[in-house]
Amino acid sequence: MVDILHRVGVKASVDEVYTALTTIDGLAGWWTTNTVGEGSEVGGVVQFTFGPGGFDMKVLELVPGKRVLWEVVEGPEEWVGTQVEWELGQVDEWAIILFKHEGWKEPVEFMNHCSTKWAIFLMSLKSMIETGKGSPDPDDVSISNWH
Amino acid sequence: MVDILHRVGVKASVDEVYTALTTIDGLAGWWTTNTVGEGSEVGGVVQFTFGPGGFDMKVLELVPGKRVLWEVVEGPEEWVGTQVEWELGQVDEWAIILFKHEGWKEPVEFMNHCSTKWAIFLMSLKSMIETGKGSPDPDDVSISNWH
Repeated sequence: MVDILHRVGVKASVDEVYTALTTIDGLAGWWTTNTVGEGSEVGGVVQFTFGPGGFDMKVLELVPGKRVLWEVVEGPEEWVGTQVEWELGQVDEWAIILFKHEGWKEPVEFMNHCSTKWAIFLMSLKSMIETGKGSPDPDDVSISNWH
Repeated sequence: MVDILHRVGVKASVDEVYTALTTIDGLAGWWTTNTVGEGSEVGGVVQFTFGPGGFDMKVLELVPGKRVLWEVVEGPEEWVGTQVEWELGQVDEWAIILFKHEGWKEPVEFMNHCSTKWAIFLMSLKSMIETGKGSPDPDDVSISNWH
């Protein structure tokens, strides 16, 4: 088992970040504009669609301002069964996000790609909250021939 | 042992990327402007200095256009003894970089930070080669209260 880890600080309250992770408008503002479903209730499922495919995330845990945990229930084979964990903490004026995408069976090349891409989307989340403008798919930053 | 993985594609030849990883001018153009040492010979040591500190990397392996391997010989406790591996491959007009920073003893919060920061610096490397302008320290993109 191998994990993707990231840490980003957003000049905002943890409540603002929590909202960006649990509402459809919030999620659509930084990850993909094509987002539907229910992200604000445990057991809800959110469908994220991108150009080449997408992911369905089931909400496993929600602690307002502190923690969000999703499990991938549909999507690329490498993603299904993995979990995406968001831990939030307030440090002075910073909302610190500790991100983990865990449970990858193998460190395949696609995992390298997803690790970089998560960093880019975390910066999109940061930008959305701090400036009002994120870069969700299809206007996300291209990192390679895999977009 | 846990690793940081990334994958970025640069619209260039692997030779251009190899040069950016093995020459002082190249390295200073995307990671930190304060770079000195010898990166183009096995056994050479490159000193990378940032605002709050820095890293000394010993060059362990060099295969032109294909592979660069460094070992951290000085720096933060969590980094010393870890290895930074660059695997390069040409796919049509893309130089694909598979990056691994391996050998972390524990998945500490600093590792999350470094994972995100590596992604940002890989995008700086990509930008330097594709556009002529990278964003090395001290003009790198800030990701949090840890800069």
